[in-house]
Amino acid sequence: MSKAKKNPSSVSLDTLAIGIDIGGTGTKFGIVDRNGNVLFQNEISTRGHAEVESFIDELHVQLSELIERSGGSGRMRGIGVGAPNGNYYTGTVEYAPNLPWKGIIPLAKLIQNKFQLPTVLTNDANAAAIGEMMYGAAKEKKDFIMITLGTGVGSGIVANGHLILGHDGFAGELGHTIIIPNGRFHPGTGKYGSLESYASATGVALTAVEMLEKSEEDSLLRKVPKNKIDSKKVYDAAIENDKLAKEIFDFTGKILGMALANFVMFSSPEAIILFGGLTKAGELILKPTREHMEKNLIQVFQNKVKILISHLKESDAAILGASALVWEMKD
Amino acid sequence: MSKAKKNPSSVSLDTLAIGIDIGGTGTKFGIVDRNGNVLFQNEISTRGHAEVESFIDELHVQLSELIERSGGSGRMRGIGVGAPNGNYYTGTVEYAPNLPWKGIIPLAKLIQNKFQLPTVLTNDANAAAIGEMMYGAAKEKKDFIMITLGTGVGSGIVANGHLILGHDGFAGELGHTIIIPNGRFHPGTGKYGSLESYASATGVALTAVEMLEKSEEDSLLRKVPKNKIDSKKVYDAAIENDKLAKEIFDFTGKILGMALANFVMFSSPEAIILFGGLTKAGELILKPTREHMEKNLIQVFQNKVKILISHLKESDAAILGASALVWEMKD
Repeated sequence: MSKAKKNPSSVSLDTLAIGIDIGGTGTKFGIVDRNGNVLFQNEISTRGHAEVESFIDELHVQLSELIERSGGSGRMRGIGVGAPNGNYYTGTVEYAPNLPWKGIIPLAKLIQNKFQLPTVLTNDANAAAIGEMMYGAAKEKKDFIMITLGTGVGSGIVANGHLILGHDGFAGELGHTIIIPNGRFHPGTGKYGSLESYASATGVALTAVEMLEKSEEDSLLRKVPKNKIDSKKVYDAAIENDKLAKEIFDFTGKILGMALANFVMFSSPEAIILFGGLTKAGELILKPTREHMEKNLIQVFQNKVKILISHLKESDAAILGASALVWEMKD
Repeated sequence: MSKAKKNPSSVSLDTLAIGIDIGGTGTKFGIVDRNGNVLFQNEISTRGHAEVESFIDELHVQLSELIERSGGSGRMRGIGVGAPNGNYYTGTVEYAPNLPWKGIIPLAKLIQNKFQLPTVLTNDANAAAIGEMMYGAAKEKKDFIMITLGTGVGSGIVANGHLILGHDGFAGELGHTIIIPNGRFHPGTGKYGSLESYASATGVALTAVEMLEKSEEDSLLRKVPKNKIDSKKVYDAAIENDKLAKEIFDFTGKILGMALANFVMFSSPEAIILFGGLTKAGELILKPTREHMEKNLIQVFQNKVKILISHLKESDAAILGASALVWEMKD
């Protein structure tokens, strides 16, 4: 390596990245430096925009403010976007069940044209996996699976140190794998018994309503109108030692554990990293998940795979993950 | 690159490889040249050897004869072994449910010591996947899944052009993934509802017995004593247009198709390559498999993934796959 002094004029100022994480409900975005510090961030509604064009217009207005506060567009190296069903190869979002925009959306191109900055896009959970590998619980891990348990269930799979993208860029849709044949209907996909229909925040609320109907058991949740029950209220009841609420998490963990066992027997990861709202339930969901994962694993995989909760501050992690894509861009 | 003439004395004669494929019932082995021609081959019983040492003794006797006929040990570059639960990193076979030897067996080392030739070992289905990539249906494919439908169900997964081995070398045990929770018991693993318990030759025979008991339908299979029913007899009845026999394949294809859908949503392969005895049933099993795979895929994956039957001559393929490991050995 050359030991010559660096020419100061070659030190680029464009050392910031923009991360955008598009979720079914809201879209988070922020300005991130090389060390993973989120300098500025904000959020807009996704669901509120029936048309992708109006979504991008609002995103542009809001993000431009943050860009100005960070020293202007010239300091931005690029934009990284995580979105459900986002495709790294084509920059498109295709038939995303949880987004308001249907069909094939050339999202990376639309954003790149609007902001005049190089833009790269991937599946939101793939972005989160890269974020974990760069800054979080997966540092120095070459084989792990990231599962995001939010409104939906997403996944990013890393094997041999690389994201599994598949031949078409759509790999890693573990939330849509069928765990209970002929099980619960998923209105977004039209499929029955997928992991997402049980192990998402939405799924936990549905399980709660079902169990309240089937059981005679008294429960704090009976005071809540059915259409107001959500995973947070189930959690609140469970930490009050509510028996039914705890059974709801046991059931959710059982399904999640079975699914994780299948994923382990596919790619034999060192760890599974869980991220998102449901992980706030901690051992209430982790204990049955671990137990049922081990129960369904053949011997050679037992007592090996760590289930970890993401370290990253939740409000930052999605933005960090998306921005991390920018540092991997080719010049 | 140098254009100097090759020194003839540097042209090595050790251009043959030994391939050994260890299955639950029998073990096939042969001598293979660089172009994938199996020069000599033979087979011994696996099941007949309660002790691994006596197995290796017989293997040595039988293989030595082929080695002599091929010009002696000096022409052999090494030995590649495919075995259920075989581990590429450690050279061991660990807790293989379908082999007579229990616990952790240092198989590569035992073979290497006996033959005094460098030996590399992997999962039998991983070996088959490498064979398909070098000589078969997966030529020039970078993302595919190989599924072997024999006595058991094995798998080898290739993503980004590389085998997925996992952090510990045990990845790709898709036969043991749970497809029907609380489903059929698998005596080898103690688990319920795995793919292997339905979509193997053993599984088809069990389905036949179950369906004959449950149904009133007349069937050619009713003439066969229950303990003599095997997948071949079900096939023979199905091509005679036996309704119940066709239902057995429909059911098997339904389970296999559901499983394949889950695998596709994991790694989004360009193709799934099927290999082994059950594939002889052709469209009888392929049609329901394809149909139920598509039915369980979310839209973004539909009508994209080819289900192919291995091109390789069945008697050669397992040996070819194992021998292919040798060409990938480092000098």
